Amino acid sequence: MAGRAVVLLSGGLDSATAAAWAKAAGFEVAALSVDYGQRHRLELEAAHLVARQLEIADHRIVAVDLHAIGGSALTDDVPVPRDREAIGADIPVTYVPARNTVFLALLTGFAEVIGATDLVIGVNAQDYSGYPDCRPEFLRAFEAVARLGTRAGAEGARFSVHAPLLHLSKAGIVRLGSSLGVDFAATLSCYDPPAALVHCGRCDACRLRRAGFAEAGVPDPSSYES
Amino acid sequence: MAGRAVVLLSGGLDSATAAAWAKAAGFEVAALSVDYGQRHRLELEAAHLVARQLEIADHRIVAVDLHAIGGSALTDDVPVPRDREAIGADIPVTYVPARNTVFLALLTGFAEVIGATDLVIGVNAQDYSGYPDCRPEFLRAFEAVARLGTRAGAEGARFSVHAPLLHLSKAGIVRLGSSLGVDFAATLSCYDPPAALVHCGRCDACRLRRAGFAEAGVPDPSSYES
Repeated sequence: MAGRAVVLLSGGLDSATAAAWAKAAGFEVAALSVDYGQRHRLELEAAHLVARQLEIADHRIVAVDLHAIGGSALTDDVPVPRDREAIGADIPVTYVPARNTVFLALLTGFAEVIGATDLVIGVNAQDYSGYPDCRPEFLRAFEAVARLGTRAGAEGARFSVHAPLLHLSKAGIVRLGSSLGVDFAATLSCYDPPAALVHCGRCDACRLRRAGFAEAGVPDPSSYES
Repeated sequence: MAGRAVVLLSGGLDSATAAAWAKAAGFEVAALSVDYGQRHRLELEAAHLVARQLEIADHRIVAVDLHAIGGSALTDDVPVPRDREAIGADIPVTYVPARNTVFLALLTGFAEVIGATDLVIGVNAQDYSGYPDCRPEFLRAFEAVARLGTRAGAEGARFSVHAPLLHLSKAGIVRLGSSLGVDFAATLSCYDPPAALVHCGRCDACRLRRAGFAEAGVPDPSSYES
């Protein structure tokens, strides 16, 4: 047994695969989902399904109301872009200010409470072309913060932020998740889902997801509206 | 004008003094208070009064429900200790897991939204004997996270975490706040206040506050229950 790990679980394909990776690596996995005032609760329902499918008994939801500081199409009254020409060319409007910093901070708190020092997050190469808080140097800097800012760290523990998907394309993630037995039908990637586990098919997240399955040659179990 | 700064405002004596410092230093100050499931909303009311007294027009409150991860007398069902023999000898039970990491993360998000790169937090020497996330090396590590994890940082901005009270005793903070015109009657330090702006007088925070005024030779405007 590799000890306990805490996984940030969004309900998406990436974090489900990251959680499956942590289980396969021998960690006793607990999961944290963040309800950050996203447009839809459907994402949290997917996270619940994923946790159940992966037999993660300790799954907690922390609510953070980011509306008060705004700044993103995912938390604010900015429309989600659809059918964009280029994906990942610049920092998208779906960027939530300091999102991964906030999420990793909460994950660190959770880790500390349950005695874990391994944090797992499903960020990947396709993200970090656009989101600064997905870059490897950010994750390394956060490990120092977690070590210096916690009781366990003050007592000598080292913290690791694992990003097992970091250098994978979406197709690579689909292949890895598939080989680890992830039930992708329980996951939701859409920024603006029309219904439970239904994908709009047109936002950046849906288009990346669809292309990932196609490129991986793995059957896509998702339901798309268009 | 030194640009914009965001101040973490708890409603306590320390953060009020830190905010007054930022104003005196020439920053255009915005304030963020975090409603993290503390026992009493009275702390937030004090923060509101402090913001008004310091003429901080942009004061936002972000709610984070830390109950789901628990782990502290301030968020969990653990009694607040009173009349302790020694203060600051070890990490107290009022330690909230990764609290300053979470708070600074939210402050970073707020900074990013309003275009600030200066973060101000009222941590001090008396704290960091007990709380790991008040140590200077933690604050320096967080600056790297803020720079690496934000759009502004990715575009070249440097972030500074100012802790103007870091090496001050409570008496030193009282003297500084007094010289900057802070109305201490609007501040609340108590971990478990019996009423609005009333201090229990017996928890660690109350005892430090009282002793700070006495040592500073500044009249204490606070109301104490005992």
